[in-house]
Amino acid sequence: MALIVQKFGGSSVANAERVMNVARIVTDTYKNGNDVVVVVSAQGDTTDDLIDKAKEINPSASKREMDMLLASGEQISIALLAMAIEKLGYPVCSLLGWQAGFSTNSVYGSARIKKVNAERIKLEIGKKNIVIVAGFQGLNKYDDITTLGRGGSDTSAVAIAASMHADRCQIFTDVEGVYTADPRKIKSAQKLNEITYDEMLELATLGAQVLNNRSVEMAKKYNVTLEVLSSLVRAPGTIVKEVTTMEKMLVRGVTKDTDVARISIIGVSNVPGIAYKIFGKLAAKNINVDIILQSVGRGDTKDITFTVAKSHGDEAVEILKNLDLCTGLEIVCDTNVAKVSVVGAGMETHPGVASTMFEALFEADINIQMIATSEIKISVLIDAADADKAVEAVHNAFIPVIS
Amino acid sequence: MALIVQKFGGSSVANAERVMNVARIVTDTYKNGNDVVVVVSAQGDTTDDLIDKAKEINPSASKREMDMLLASGEQISIALLAMAIEKLGYPVCSLLGWQAGFSTNSVYGSARIKKVNAERIKLEIGKKNIVIVAGFQGLNKYDDITTLGRGGSDTSAVAIAASMHADRCQIFTDVEGVYTADPRKIKSAQKLNEITYDEMLELATLGAQVLNNRSVEMAKKYNVTLEVLSSLVRAPGTIVKEVTTMEKMLVRGVTKDTDVARISIIGVSNVPGIAYKIFGKLAAKNINVDIILQSVGRGDTKDITFTVAKSHGDEAVEILKNLDLCTGLEIVCDTNVAKVSVVGAGMETHPGVASTMFEALFEADINIQMIATSEIKISVLIDAADADKAVEAVHNAFIPVIS
Repeated sequence: MALIVQKFGGSSVANAERVMNVARIVTDTYKNGNDVVVVVSAQGDTTDDLIDKAKEINPSASKREMDMLLASGEQISIALLAMAIEKLGYPVCSLLGWQAGFSTNSVYGSARIKKVNAERIKLEIGKKNIVIVAGFQGLNKYDDITTLGRGGSDTSAVAIAASMHADRCQIFTDVEGVYTADPRKIKSAQKLNEITYDEMLELATLGAQVLNNRSVEMAKKYNVTLEVLSSLVRAPGTIVKEVTTMEKMLVRGVTKDTDVARISIIGVSNVPGIAYKIFGKLAAKNINVDIILQSVGRGDTKDITFTVAKSHGDEAVEILKNLDLCTGLEIVCDTNVAKVSVVGAGMETHPGVASTMFEALFEADINIQMIATSEIKISVLIDAADADKAVEAVHNAFIPVIS
Repeated sequence: MALIVQKFGGSSVANAERVMNVARIVTDTYKNGNDVVVVVSAQGDTTDDLIDKAKEINPSASKREMDMLLASGEQISIALLAMAIEKLGYPVCSLLGWQAGFSTNSVYGSARIKKVNAERIKLEIGKKNIVIVAGFQGLNKYDDITTLGRGGSDTSAVAIAASMHADRCQIFTDVEGVYTADPRKIKSAQKLNEITYDEMLELATLGAQVLNNRSVEMAKKYNVTLEVLSSLVRAPGTIVKEVTTMEKMLVRGVTKDTDVARISIIGVSNVPGIAYKIFGKLAAKNINVDIILQSVGRGDTKDITFTVAKSHGDEAVEILKNLDLCTGLEIVCDTNVAKVSVVGAGMETHPGVASTMFEALFEADINIQMIATSEIKISVLIDAADADKAVEAVHNAFIPVIS
């Protein structure tokens, strides 16, 4: 008998039929002798609908009241799922975030979980109940409702799994697992059986959009074994855990990210402290910088190029323009770019990965603007129009080594 | 400076425009130097929509999960009202039933309030916040959400007013107060300035549908001054309190109730204990009996006629058929009847009331099937088709004495 935490997102419970489908998955797991704790998000577009209702009344409503409003979404879905499980004849109990013991800090709208006191969940499991928990929400020290921000239900599920030492935390989505590339675009994309936390983090950051990053970080920290699988197709998914069997595995996946702006400062003085002044200022404004490229100084000046999220492009340019060291310099912001990356924990010991990637791009006639590497990934910045072609070319080049 | 509790029903907050209207009423009260606690119901048809969602999944869902589901309705409306008040620039804080300190028993779906611990409300008022409380809901000893049943928000408001010794509890509705008859049907109907708790109870029971009965009972018990007034028209409403100035006031109102079934048992043995056996059995099945009429015994037999709510008609007949003492007897159930009543605390000392009523009915050519009287009301059972005509005739007859 194992303790399994299962998480279902909004689209998995979007209507009565899908709620019944989830109820069947949950009760099948219970029937096999497992204790089951289920974390659910709000149904389908409920959260967006509630946000629209709020905006109609007050577009600048306080975050406390927004959290009060939004938390009702999961309340509806946990009750409906519990009713569906009752209908199938199984004992069940739904719990709100605060009932399930979620304590958070007081950053309304994107609160961090401080602790999960799982007493009540354990009590209900002791009564042989299937326990349904509202994801995305908790309670702060003032006894006020908080929400964890978008994707927070993944984090709720991992937090319960960590606090209860669950045997597995299953994240159900509308894809069958983690793929080597976007299966809707790359026909030869393959589902991975296993992946490490670090690889998953790189894939998530790079736009694979399967798992929320905070949840993977938490899973890594508390060594929670995750499984990403489909709520629509009954098949094993992708296991995310610390140690995986590497063997021939070299590259885990190829991703693209088009939410990128490339900013260049041309002709900066070639004196010490420039990078600190530029990036310190951006960090102070909470602008995350991704790839940084600095040209080798040519005499008195050098060029600095870096990437940020598209939404931060204009703000970053504005900040740079107000820096003394940028006075009179040309600052260029190009949002017409994409980042294509290969990810794989094996690659650091295989020097051929980078050259295979560059060769594939060269043969597809794609120009590389910037390159960034880490121990488990290689990213290139290219023209946005080339992005899909680049993913396909790189993916095809690695197919022989992807297991 | 006074402490005012204001309650707004679902239709008063049905859409963004109406929520803003309520926000203006509330902030005007606050602006005049009062502490304000507001109790709100779920928006418009939200509760019915949620019930439909539940039925689609499981028509026999547990009441615990129904309460979990339904309580989300008020959560949405308190947050939206708080946002509207923020928009008008006033300090505000919304609270769920449990946050506002509502402890109830564990009868899910129609829980009784055991206690209101108003600590948190007082804390927020101390911060000069307008406090918005979710009506209709509380928490039982297991820390589970309960709801108070339909009309429960009235009771929530009175409970807060009682526990905090509020100066007044204003119940906002879509009518301007309590009328001597239904103003949509009887043109000469007049708004009452004042009414006693007992009169209000009789009027509510008789179908005036302005205030929930439990809330009036609680207001009477804790001596909370109620005011029934309109959320759409800014005008004084009807005050409900213990002592009113009687003077010429004789009759407070004329009401009709068409939710009545008349059941007759013809030819029951004229021996002791019959009434006990019949009505004891009905009470055991939770069937409320209203008017009872027993014919004078004709030799060995007598006839017994009584009224119940329409929804209980068939069940009552079924119970009677299974009684030994009814074997072989004719049992008739007529749902084509209506009860018309005059209510007024002054009438017990004025013997002319009953005869004025009967005369009015006679002149309108309406046959009286049954008559029941109490200290403050006279009810007659008549053909349903005559109900509106009867209300008009009786109301017109009393106009000279209604103040």
